[in-house]
Amino acid sequence: MGKHGEFTRFRRKMNKKILEQGNLGIKRFFALDTQAYEPGAIDARAKELMGLAASMVLRCDDCVTYHLIQARDKGATSEEFFETFQIALIVGGSIVIPHLRRAVDFLEELDKKSPGGKKTPRRPV
Amino acid sequence: MGKHGEFTRFRRKMNKKILEQGNLGIKRFFALDTQAYEPGAIDARAKELMGLAASMVLRCDDCVTYHLIQARDKGATSEEFFETFQIALIVGGSIVIPHLRRAVDFLEELDKKSPGGKKTPRRPV
Amino acid sequence: MGKHGEFTRFRRKMNKKILEQGNLGIKRFFALDTQAYEPGAIDARAKELMGLAASMVLRCDDCVTYHLIQARDKGATSEEFFETFQIALIVGGSIVIPHLRRAVDFLEELDKKSPGGKKTPRRPV
Amino acid sequence: MGKHGEFTRFRRKMNKKILEQGNLGIKRFFALDTQAYEPGAIDARAKELMGLAASMVLRCDDCVTYHLIQARDKGATSEEFFETFQIALIVGGSIVIPHLRRAVDFLEELDKKSPGGKKTPRRPV
Amino acid sequence: MGKHGEFTRFRRKMNKKILEQGNLGIKRFFALDTQAYEPGAIDARAKELMGLAASMVLRCDDCVTYHLIQARDKGATSEEFFETFQIALIVGGSIVIPHLRRAVDFLEELDKKSPGGKKTPRRPV
Amino acid sequence: MGKHGEFTRFRRKMNKKILEQGNLGIKRFFALDTQAYEPGAIDARAKELMGLAASMVLRCDDCVTYHLIQARDKGATSEEFFETFQIALIVGGSIVIPHLRRAVDFLEELDKKSPGGKKTPRRPV
Repeated sequence: MGKHGEFTRFRRKMNKKILEQGNLGIKRFFALDTQAYEPGAIDARAKELMGLAASMVLRCDDCVTYHLIQARDKGATSEEFFETFQIALIVGGSIVIPHLRRAVDFLEELDKKSPGGKKTPRRPV
Repeated sequence: MGKHGEFTRFRRKMNKKILEQGNLGIKRFFALDTQAYEPGAIDARAKELMGLAASMVLRCDDCVTYHLIQARDKGATSEEFFETFQIALIVGGSIVIPHLRRAVDFLEELDKKSPGGKKTPRRPV
Repeated sequence: MGKHGEFTRFRRKMNKKILEQGNLGIKRFFALDTQAYEPGAIDARAKELMGLAASMVLRCDDCVTYHLIQARDKGATSEEFFETFQIALIVGGSIVIPHLRRAVDFLEELDKKSPGGKKTPRRPV
Repeated sequence: MGKHGEFTRFRRKMNKKILEQGNLGIKRFFALDTQAYEPGAIDARAKELMGLAASMVLRCDDCVTYHLIQARDKGATSEEFFETFQIALIVGGSIVIPHLRRAVDFLEELDKKSPGGKKTPRRPV
Repeated sequence: MGKHGEFTRFRRKMNKKILEQGNLGIKRFFALDTQAYEPGAIDARAKELMGLAASMVLRCDDCVTYHLIQARDKGATSEEFFETFQIALIVGGSIVIPHLRRAVDFLEELDKKSPGGKKTPRRPV
Repeated sequence: MGKHGEFTRFRRKMNKKILEQGNLGIKRFFALDTQAYEPGAIDARAKELMGLAASMVLRCDDCVTYHLIQARDKGATSEEFFETFQIALIVGGSIVIPHLRRAVDFLEELDKKSPGGKKTPRRPV
């Protein structure tokens, strides 16, 4: 199924279980999380790249994967991705490198899978 | 063997090797770690949930797994777990979400395995 | 005015400015933050101590200060505070020590100020 | 002198001393740091806001201060700043709040000082 | 192939792809990273152990693996490794333990593989 | 009194209060912390520099200050300090820079105060 498929499947399954559990605070947090990346004064692509940079310096692989998918769906180019990686690397240091390797590997899978840029629906639960 | 079995097996095997190596400072640190969760002015269950929250915000999956096992053994309910997750999520932000997903997945395995609440011995080496 | 007074004054002033700016996502986050510590399956005092432990391991002095005030208002004893510090120290390591020093210093100021346990209103904006 | 003046004075003085010491690796790192924010596929303002978000989630006050100055010089608006803060808050959690308070306080000082948007030279040593 | 082989293969493959992409800032960062561990006033082995301690407290498994390989190539003994682990454990706390387990497991694989101390070439791209 | 004096005074005063409080786990942790830097297979100076690097990447100013004092007492040279800073900078990224500035500023105060290398007693309570 590939990493993309596995990632999306597990995320959806678990998000569903978490939200069904009925903790209202967690439910609202998930909603706020989605809303933070909606276009405003800053456009959606720039926000996803910003989320990507923040995820890389905090070294959260799943978060990186998620923002790679979203940013690519919003048209981010290879140059934009690498300039984002460059900032994350400088800000966060060499401990970011392992996450950079996995990010580039995942981007390659994304490119193989949908060279024409098939859209992924946003944060579906 | 399931994640629970694998986790416990590897933890025991490696803890044994680490302690056999003879570094006294590491040995004592392991002892202090165990003692910190013993009941005192704060009861053992609340301490395990506190350790769980601290582990989630620091995003340490193995630590989360460990405290899930311990807190459940000490009678933590589903509501208590989710209120702990809620605090960890608010304090630590969306980067906690991937760890929350894995925690909920692991809790489910724990529940299937021992619906009657079989006790796990504490930090055995 | 003492650290307590300064902390509270600056927090209120800035929270007010932040919330007046009109960013709905930030406003809702602040509300969720307050709600996470309301009593539920876990009581309010245990939640504040949990927030304190999480703040210490993440080494956020202002967050530590805030939860010290709240937990003390909810009746946390010196023994409970030190058992919480003990867990934070073991989980987070020696880098927690400087925050522990400042926490103990602040607790002392709190005790001098209101030996009879004057209540502080919760998270006023 | 205000926080802006103090910050800039200490930064320049210490950067000068650090670079004079003659460690080539540190010197080159400082150069790379400057270059990472130069306009490319992503424009300079978006890069500064990205650096700001990364600095907030990593909770580095001086880095936040620096990127606030730079982003404002490159024309960032109040709405853009608060959308960046919103993302940082969601990604990094409530421990970001103390840094958010200080950031908003500093922005206010910047606005008072140069309402017409006086430019600050970039990373001068 | 073992963890060592897999780690090295993936690292080389991805480093090559990253450097071929042509982002000069990233390329230079990789060069600076290598240079930082070259012998100077501090010898190469002590620098690798320092990199190991820093990687452990930041909890970066791939970085730990890398410095274990390098330090062992430069003659680090079992006692030196465990004293480094001890410092990392005290500084970083119990969240370091899972990384310590994996480090000791990896060291064992290294010892089995090349008991005579076969040298690994440094950071080859 | 200078930063050195203030730092030492507050540290001693608070350590005394913390240890007098009677929490055995915290007391033992403090003892383990001291023991970790005692000479063994790795000499005391190299251990202090290792502690310094770990403190810098974790961005703990008080810890950095402490290890600067100790390492200098054990004869660390300016070149050794800057090579340690270089590693910390590469591993931890540009967010280390503010701590580097303060470290260099503090080193200068240390040098002015005791050009002949007056010894500071180790971790006195």
